[in-house]
Amino acid sequence: MASSLSRPIAIIAGAGPGTGAAIARRFAQTYPVVLLARSSTSLDPLVQGINQNGGTALGLPTDVTNPDNMDSTMTQIRNHFGTDMTVAAAIFNVASKFSRTPFLDSGSEFLDSLEATARGSSAFAKAVIPFMLAEAEKSPADQQQQQPQHPPTLIFTGATASLKGGSGLGSFAMSKFAVRALAQSLAREFGPQGLHVAHAIIDGIIDTEQTKDFNRDRPDSKIDPKWIAKSYWFLHTQPRTAFTQELDIRPYGETW
Amino acid sequence: MASSLSRPIAIIAGAGPGTGAAIARRFAQTYPVVLLARSSTSLDPLVQGINQNGGTALGLPTDVTNPDNMDSTMTQIRNHFGTDMTVAAAIFNVASKFSRTPFLDSGSEFLDSLEATARGSSAFAKAVIPFMLAEAEKSPADQQQQQPQHPPTLIFTGATASLKGGSGLGSFAMSKFAVRALAQSLAREFGPQGLHVAHAIIDGIIDTEQTKDFNRDRPDSKIDPKWIAKSYWFLHTQPRTAFTQELDIRPYGETW
Amino acid sequence: MASSLSRPIAIIAGAGPGTGAAIARRFAQTYPVVLLARSSTSLDPLVQGINQNGGTALGLPTDVTNPDNMDSTMTQIRNHFGTDMTVAAAIFNVASKFSRTPFLDSGSEFLDSLEATARGSSAFAKAVIPFMLAEAEKSPADQQQQQPQHPPTLIFTGATASLKGGSGLGSFAMSKFAVRALAQSLAREFGPQGLHVAHAIIDGIIDTEQTKDFNRDRPDSKIDPKWIAKSYWFLHTQPRTAFTQELDIRPYGETW
Amino acid sequence: MASSLSRPIAIIAGAGPGTGAAIARRFAQTYPVVLLARSSTSLDPLVQGINQNGGTALGLPTDVTNPDNMDSTMTQIRNHFGTDMTVAAAIFNVASKFSRTPFLDSGSEFLDSLEATARGSSAFAKAVIPFMLAEAEKSPADQQQQQPQHPPTLIFTGATASLKGGSGLGSFAMSKFAVRALAQSLAREFGPQGLHVAHAIIDGIIDTEQTKDFNRDRPDSKIDPKWIAKSYWFLHTQPRTAFTQELDIRPYGETW
Repeated sequence: MASSLSRPIAIIAGAGPGTGAAIARRFAQTYPVVLLARSSTSLDPLVQGINQNGGTALGLPTDVTNPDNMDSTMTQIRNHFGTDMTVAAAIFNVASKFSRTPFLDSGSEFLDSLEATARGSSAFAKAVIPFMLAEAEKSPADQQQQQPQHPPTLIFTGATASLKGGSGLGSFAMSKFAVRALAQSLAREFGPQGLHVAHAIIDGIIDTEQTKDFNRDRPDSKIDPKWIAKSYWFLHTQPRTAFTQELDIRPYGETW
Repeated sequence: MASSLSRPIAIIAGAGPGTGAAIARRFAQTYPVVLLARSSTSLDPLVQGINQNGGTALGLPTDVTNPDNMDSTMTQIRNHFGTDMTVAAAIFNVASKFSRTPFLDSGSEFLDSLEATARGSSAFAKAVIPFMLAEAEKSPADQQQQQPQHPPTLIFTGATASLKGGSGLGSFAMSKFAVRALAQSLAREFGPQGLHVAHAIIDGIIDTEQTKDFNRDRPDSKIDPKWIAKSYWFLHTQPRTAFTQELDIRPYGETW
Repeated sequence: MASSLSRPIAIIAGAGPGTGAAIARRFAQTYPVVLLARSSTSLDPLVQGINQNGGTALGLPTDVTNPDNMDSTMTQIRNHFGTDMTVAAAIFNVASKFSRTPFLDSGSEFLDSLEATARGSSAFAKAVIPFMLAEAEKSPADQQQQQPQHPPTLIFTGATASLKGGSGLGSFAMSKFAVRALAQSLAREFGPQGLHVAHAIIDGIIDTEQTKDFNRDRPDSKIDPKWIAKSYWFLHTQPRTAFTQELDIRPYGETW
Repeated sequence: MASSLSRPIAIIAGAGPGTGAAIARRFAQTYPVVLLARSSTSLDPLVQGINQNGGTALGLPTDVTNPDNMDSTMTQIRNHFGTDMTVAAAIFNVASKFSRTPFLDSGSEFLDSLEATARGSSAFAKAVIPFMLAEAEKSPADQQQQQPQHPPTLIFTGATASLKGGSGLGSFAMSKFAVRALAQSLAREFGPQGLHVAHAIIDGIIDTEQTKDFNRDRPDSKIDPKWIAKSYWFLHTQPRTAFTQELDIRPYGETW
């Protein structure tokens, strides 16, 4: 299915229900999207929904934390979209395992969150960046034939714990601090090549199926995933003259 | 000219050429805009341009750093737009005086930047917030009769020196740190009432008439004011479920 | 009383009861100390106590926020200690006025805290730095004749609100952010000349006469001023190979 | 050798030449010290030196990043010092592997630094904290029989990259950010129990055998390890009324 006219694509890792799905739907309005999640169970309805609504979605069950797995996924993507495939947007939205556990009660699982997150975020970045640099280097002539180009954008989803450790939250905070370090380092390394690397601090409860019973009496006190998606899309539209590296997103009533 | 149908307006302080003008033009696409600057010289062509392009602009020469002056300006605005006037967006974009002076060589002017900025930012916030809270409290019924509502948004323009002091930059950094403190404090106080208060760290040279000879050989190495404006507009569109309090804006090649 | 053998002195601004007094007593163990406060009422017992315990203290009622006042104070100090007087340590411990006031209820006093703090901190720094640079430049030969030298140290007292604005705390936070900006800027400008500029974030209630009824049932939940003093003294002892620019001080039970 | 009179000890992980050795020597002035490093080669001369100078040092080659290894080390320590052994100070000074490598050129070793650091810092903390809490809980009566007590203190050595990612520094920055997250989380969890957890940002070149040829012409432009040690000791002496959680240490000429 390789094609010399192939459009750039968007890849979303952590495309489960909630934020990932909202991001996928938003980017699918412009790009063919590749959705990665551990199981096809969560991918299938999302992929189907996008394809039925005029978008193009490809769901690939992938363990992003396994570099080999990520490699074979990239091969599948290239087989599908063509060897000249480029990536316009890549979102690392894989959740770090959250638990609030007294430190001394935690076992070897203490490091699982960090190791999975670190492996996942760095393997994902390594897999997609070459195709994003290719997108950044497209000549203006190429661009005229295609849609108006936004600089390729790599976004990492962060959390309150990206900025601040907490009692019993060591495992989670180590994960989120580390992702922020990676995002900053990649922004400084690849920004000058036209790759926009951003980090979003999601500070509050996200309004999903799982959290539907929280704060029922306080309207708008949870973050609408569609607006995380819109904020990510806005980051993507910024030209290289005006990149945002970090922003926070928080419901109006949240204390911080 | 008071009217029970009056639309909410936007007020931009520091509406000189460059960033202020770009913000004014962007917000004028949706709202009548009131533009404040010290002299009418810089306001007139901007006001004229907006009015000729189908927008509505009112230019009021105002010394924002003078609370009395700011009060009489608000009276003029209410006289013009009606006593039920509300404010959908207010932007504090007044430049703090920048100078890099050896500390021991500086005289009493060392504090001028801080005092003007502090007086200006707090007087501006005090003048506009009551009209923004009125906007936030509009009932859904009111809103249906009007345009779709975005939460009222108060944005302060910051700089690199909002986060970091520098040799010889004490005066400027004190100003910018103080504005950030104000923005954070207002966000925490008024956020729960539906007022969106944000702070934007503009980290780089802005591409204006004054800076046209800088970095001539490096395309896109200065910040396009239009994209500062678009970023501010994006902040304004965020619903109260997903407010961004702080973001940075930086050209792709900037080191930081 | 000028003398070619004059020892370096320490100057403490904000030498009232509590932290200021503790700092004064600690530095008086090594240096003649000059104590500045608005009224002699708070200075007199402190000065007397130090002089009776074998130290040398000079109390000078001074409005630090008034540059003229600060100038004449420096003249008095030189008249007292000699024209070759140098300053080994200078502590800016003047309290910023704290009030938690709804922003819209605040009047022109909103800026009083900031303006007094900004004027005071910058006037104090301007007055003392020349005498601190003179101390830094003393030749090793000079030093051998005197006591072992620590690099001259200029310390600013900060607070929780140095890092974080708060609802109703805009006035106070603007003050404390601004002082931090000044401290950072001076550290970057004068550090390379051997002047140690530090900022201490005092995060918690200080145990003073005024707060004696707070947290009575929780031992050690207030900060012991003697330990603020010891921490400042420790900063002063650091050689130029290992300067600390910022540290926090917080009781063990404090959340942050 | 177990004894009901056993004194509290200090444990230093990463007790190689340079900073680790300086810390060991400083804490050995007051406590028996246990020194951990990967190989006995670097431990032996240090242990010998301390023991010859009137201190008590025990060197145990340990791979701190291996939890089993760390467990058996703790068993050895208890066998040596007695089952009622308590820990007054524990320093995690294990270096994270530093490399500045283009991200796309890095292989699986990209994560080695992070994983070793994360395993090491958390395994070390888990091993020592129970013995530190025991020290914190000693009754005043116990303390009178012993030396005057400082609250038990757990210190992590950080770096410039603890606060800021850098081009090609992703691996190192992820490590150092993660350690900072751990330190903050432990401080918040165990501070209220009287355990002092601190993080030191060492920002500059440390003056060691390895760096002796750097900056030869600029005296004092490298950090004296003895002063890192003295700063750590100072942190240890702070009572629970006045804990410092974070400080930076930087040569006077360093830009930052």
